[in-house]
Amino acid sequence: MKKFIHEDFLLQNEYSRKLYHEYAEKQPLIDFHCHLDPKEVAEDKKWENITQIWLGGDHYKWRAMRSDGIDEKYCTGDAPDREKFQKFAEALAHMLRNPMYHWCHLELARYFGIDDKLLNGNTAEEIWNRANERLSSLSARELMRKSNVETVCTTDDPTSDLCWHKKISQEGFEVKVLPTFRPDKAFAIEDHKTYTEYLGKLEKAAGMEIRSYDDLLTAIKRRHDYFHSLGCRISDYGLGTVHYKNAFYYELEDTFKKVTSSSEMIDDDEIHAFKSALLLECAAMDYDAGWTRQLHIGPMRNNNSRMFDKLGPDTGFDSIGESNYALSLSKHLDRLDSIGKLGRTIIYNINPKDNEMLGSMLGNFQNSDCPGKIQLGAGWWFLDNIDGISRNLEAVSNLSLLYRCVGMLTDSRSFLSYARHEYYRRILCNILGTEMEKGLLPDDFDLVGELVERVSYKNAKEYFCF
Amino acid sequence: MKKFIHEDFLLQNEYSRKLYHEYAEKQPLIDFHCHLDPKEVAEDKKWENITQIWLGGDHYKWRAMRSDGIDEKYCTGDAPDREKFQKFAEALAHMLRNPMYHWCHLELARYFGIDDKLLNGNTAEEIWNRANERLSSLSARELMRKSNVETVCTTDDPTSDLCWHKKISQEGFEVKVLPTFRPDKAFAIEDHKTYTEYLGKLEKAAGMEIRSYDDLLTAIKRRHDYFHSLGCRISDYGLGTVHYKNAFYYELEDTFKKVTSSSEMIDDDEIHAFKSALLLECAAMDYDAGWTRQLHIGPMRNNNSRMFDKLGPDTGFDSIGESNYALSLSKHLDRLDSIGKLGRTIIYNINPKDNEMLGSMLGNFQNSDCPGKIQLGAGWWFLDNIDGISRNLEAVSNLSLLYRCVGMLTDSRSFLSYARHEYYRRILCNILGTEMEKGLLPDDFDLVGELVERVSYKNAKEYFCF
Amino acid sequence: MKKFIHEDFLLQNEYSRKLYHEYAEKQPLIDFHCHLDPKEVAEDKKWENITQIWLGGDHYKWRAMRSDGIDEKYCTGDAPDREKFQKFAEALAHMLRNPMYHWCHLELARYFGIDDKLLNGNTAEEIWNRANERLSSLSARELMRKSNVETVCTTDDPTSDLCWHKKISQEGFEVKVLPTFRPDKAFAIEDHKTYTEYLGKLEKAAGMEIRSYDDLLTAIKRRHDYFHSLGCRISDYGLGTVHYKNAFYYELEDTFKKVTSSSEMIDDDEIHAFKSALLLECAAMDYDAGWTRQLHIGPMRNNNSRMFDKLGPDTGFDSIGESNYALSLSKHLDRLDSIGKLGRTIIYNINPKDNEMLGSMLGNFQNSDCPGKIQLGAGWWFLDNIDGISRNLEAVSNLSLLYRCVGMLTDSRSFLSYARHEYYRRILCNILGTEMEKGLLPDDFDLVGELVERVSYKNAKEYFCF
Repeated sequence: MKKFIHEDFLLQNEYSRKLYHEYAEKQPLIDFHCHLDPKEVAEDKKWENITQIWLGGDHYKWRAMRSDGIDEKYCTGDAPDREKFQKFAEALAHMLRNPMYHWCHLELARYFGIDDKLLNGNTAEEIWNRANERLSSLSARELMRKSNVETVCTTDDPTSDLCWHKKISQEGFEVKVLPTFRPDKAFAIEDHKTYTEYLGKLEKAAGMEIRSYDDLLTAIKRRHDYFHSLGCRISDYGLGTVHYKNAFYYELEDTFKKVTSSSEMIDDDEIHAFKSALLLECAAMDYDAGWTRQLHIGPMRNNNSRMFDKLGPDTGFDSIGESNYALSLSKHLDRLDSIGKLGRTIIYNINPKDNEMLGSMLGNFQNSDCPGKIQLGAGWWFLDNIDGISRNLEAVSNLSLLYRCVGMLTDSRSFLSYARHEYYRRILCNILGTEMEKGLLPDDFDLVGELVERVSYKNAKEYFCF
Repeated sequence: MKKFIHEDFLLQNEYSRKLYHEYAEKQPLIDFHCHLDPKEVAEDKKWENITQIWLGGDHYKWRAMRSDGIDEKYCTGDAPDREKFQKFAEALAHMLRNPMYHWCHLELARYFGIDDKLLNGNTAEEIWNRANERLSSLSARELMRKSNVETVCTTDDPTSDLCWHKKISQEGFEVKVLPTFRPDKAFAIEDHKTYTEYLGKLEKAAGMEIRSYDDLLTAIKRRHDYFHSLGCRISDYGLGTVHYKNAFYYELEDTFKKVTSSSEMIDDDEIHAFKSALLLECAAMDYDAGWTRQLHIGPMRNNNSRMFDKLGPDTGFDSIGESNYALSLSKHLDRLDSIGKLGRTIIYNINPKDNEMLGSMLGNFQNSDCPGKIQLGAGWWFLDNIDGISRNLEAVSNLSLLYRCVGMLTDSRSFLSYARHEYYRRILCNILGTEMEKGLLPDDFDLVGELVERVSYKNAKEYFCF
Repeated sequence: MKKFIHEDFLLQNEYSRKLYHEYAEKQPLIDFHCHLDPKEVAEDKKWENITQIWLGGDHYKWRAMRSDGIDEKYCTGDAPDREKFQKFAEALAHMLRNPMYHWCHLELARYFGIDDKLLNGNTAEEIWNRANERLSSLSARELMRKSNVETVCTTDDPTSDLCWHKKISQEGFEVKVLPTFRPDKAFAIEDHKTYTEYLGKLEKAAGMEIRSYDDLLTAIKRRHDYFHSLGCRISDYGLGTVHYKNAFYYELEDTFKKVTSSSEMIDDDEIHAFKSALLLECAAMDYDAGWTRQLHIGPMRNNNSRMFDKLGPDTGFDSIGESNYALSLSKHLDRLDSIGKLGRTIIYNINPKDNEMLGSMLGNFQNSDCPGKIQLGAGWWFLDNIDGISRNLEAVSNLSLLYRCVGMLTDSRSFLSYARHEYYRRILCNILGTEMEKGLLPDDFDLVGELVERVSYKNAKEYFCF
């Protein structure tokens, strides 16, 4: 049997292989959106065994295991690490054609040097031993170095003191580890109790009382400034869908009052108006600070209430939502453009049916501020697979400029996920190489190679102000 | 000219051919959802000519003929059978790239031994004669035997006495012919007159009066029990879209009263609440009985009122609907999961834009009750073609586990449609074989061959409790 | 380096090449929907330089340039023509994988004889000179002759006097240049001021006062008759989405009164009911006149208000909208069918997620009036690229009859866009040839060649009554 992961994995012809090996492979990696824990970088975390680094906290794997009928105790439960690994290995053999199958074998090959065997129930024992031995010489930082990472942006709540980012920066780690400003909790006014608790934290972080909507903006701005002072140059907003509803300022103050007093209900219109306004305000802060703004649109979260009660969020019970938000998003962007506050923006969709709608919307707001100012973000979460990435690249190419695309990011909690950049680059090079062979692209490596280098690294380098 | 239908039809490389011929081809066939008339099985129906078996009742063919400008008298009208066949043959030559072209030639080859000619106006006479000659030695049961059918599930209204199923079972036909419980008419409260007529039938079947919502549930339950006693292990619900609306029990009773008295109107909210509740109740019955539940979501039916008045339903005037039902469906499934009544469920979408939304939703409700407990149903009706099947398999693979997929069903009224299982298997094997050749799947026939056998047959065998 | 545009561009195998060169290439061209200015045909316009013919008025190019960060002065601004060309050439090198890259090089090859060089910043000077030299012997009519154009249909407001069409017709130009009736402005009742101004023009054109909804219909009918007298056989309706709302006649009169008196507001229901009714009335006029009706559904226009204020409409700030209009459109078509007024209709969608919904809807209304009576229009605007065209052909093929498809149109303002017919035909032949090679289509050039000729030309010839 041929090796499954080999140097030309996914690369189907000479053009693809040359594009990958001569242009893509050597590019450093800017992972401008991830969910790494900066503490683990600061402390240069090590792991006792592969279950800890590979299965702990990985809701993608838990989900796939549940789909295979594996008991929860081997996912999030208290089964011993070796048994969890065994169950996962058995399930992995049932994940053929799921991206998990590629990701896992790529990670085993790249980080553990295991490319001579496929992981399954029979090989689990040997791979457990070999992986754990290799793991003894690996650490968080070592994994980042091995992956040629130049910069990562973690995802952080405005109330965070960013102490770990400071520590990393003071110590002089060669990989830049920057925060991202993600104020989702400041938008979540649906739940009085959680929201007022959050405001308490925000008051403390901002060193001020928050008694009005105006105070809220001031507090957010203070944290924005603080994040900026520690190198943050990017924000992120998680949106189930996009609403756009105008309101008078006094109405927003009124809504804020209702939210913070437990006695009054707010209706959907008030919620939408409040969120619309706050999103514009935050966008303006981002613009004024020269930041890039990210919008992650469309997931439907915490769909399983029974499991949510047991395990909380981000445990594998989210899925792709659907809504018609073209008009609202267009109005939001237009409003910002009208007031001169529309800066660099990356819009990610989780439902692939929105690829073309969004891909075409970008073009309404491009201008000479910056090439590729408004971006369609890379295929993300449920779309981080060959089909999802290919369709995303197709929309970007046809409706916008691939040449200006800032490319891939991991969106991951794991230090092993940098292999996804390799995965993306291989898919990209295979698409481009195939089109060169077919004559759909010019037979010119200078031209297409430059495109590859740009999407892999150079565009991100130029686009962001890290 | 090469033969059009030959042993390697659709199979593009050595891997695909080996997968099909060594793994898929020999698997028996479990057709767990179809619309066969059990009477025709019981009586071992024979046909005088190919028009009767091929064109009678096939609204797919009528639709295609109408698109080609053929007069209705040759579709559903009173033209002689030979003329109808002639018109269809002429139209078929215009159906290149429509799945009809593949299906028809596959059926001519498999059941009539005609694979040396393409059907068109010129060959119609010869094929008419040859097909009719062959037909003289064929019957309903013979066609099922020839197709290696192990089990079929027909689609039956709760009021059915299932007399033909009983007869078949008593006679000991080697193919299991089981009923499916499809209570759509019990949901159709929009039309007072039709609904009350239906309740009359249901009363008779259940042997009780139905004067309340509670009575309705009891009557349905009685029929559910009756179906169970005759081997039914699967239900089916046809839904234009999914609504989820809570209501108090007294409100449902109130709605029922309004529906059954002709004097009062019900509004959309009442309809949605009633259907939401009834769907949950039926799901609970299914769960308690250990049945698998099917949801067929999304068609827009009877769009042509002029033709509906002439021909009634299921005559080729339905099409793909569109709606945003992610949230409602999620709430429905979550509610069932919360009360411990979410059993094996297959969800079919008719609009392919919903593939990924649904494919990802499954994962929110998988658990160790059963591997692949919640399934995305195979490409169906308008999606039963290479593009539809391929995209369905892509969603299943990327967002769930293909390895656990229960695969194909015909959804057909015809004894010749088993060729669609062959069609599906060839498409599946070609996709997998192509990926083996490209190195996207391991070059391991034990592994991929097992996958093929599972999707073709073994998964359905294990999943259903027939 | 191989030539980029060569005789087998896009054609990947022998079958494709033969289909294109022996069947598609020589077919004349019926461009049944475009936005050419008939004045330019009548005057046989000439251009001083390539910027004038290529960049002037082309909002696709401006959009792509803005996405590359090019300043507006080089798009719609007052930069010198040579500089605009330079900037475009530099940007074009960044449009790899965007259809613009193919279109531009096809046009350079076909109309300017430049196929030995790719356009970029370095080659701009040489190509500028060579193109301009060639341009000195080209004119509007010469370009149409070179492209083997048989008929074009421009897009005209009902108030147009069609003087240029008359002039062209009287002079006896060998290419038929016919008008299309596009009464969008008669629907745009949202804006009182613009609408009443428009009514003024319509009164003048129709030679009557318009004081009621009934008058409006009469005036439209007069213009419809006038267009008919000058050879118009096709209408076109631009719809953001489709509404279907019944209203009593007196309500429509009431709405009309409100619209034409500045003092009263109208609400969305009134707007939808008015437009629903007017669309039916116009459809009936089209039917009675034996015209083909086109519905262009789905764009979201003028999204950038800042630029709209500067540049007005059709300057590159439109994008793909999204809405659920399946039910409304179905009701609209059903209503027309019921009253016997549903004639030949072409429905174009701008959001590709609607391909299958629409493709299947056609089948509900096909009949023996005409083969392929209801058509899914070709991939349009944002979908006029390989992916968009391929997916459109897939929907047409699977859900309707490709054999009856009337094929491509440019929808363009430029005399150079006929290359898009070539582009479409090459894509079509490549798809069909690839399927012949794979055995998905019979290995029969008579059969598939006929299909190619039909979609390229013959179907349009038969379908329209030009």
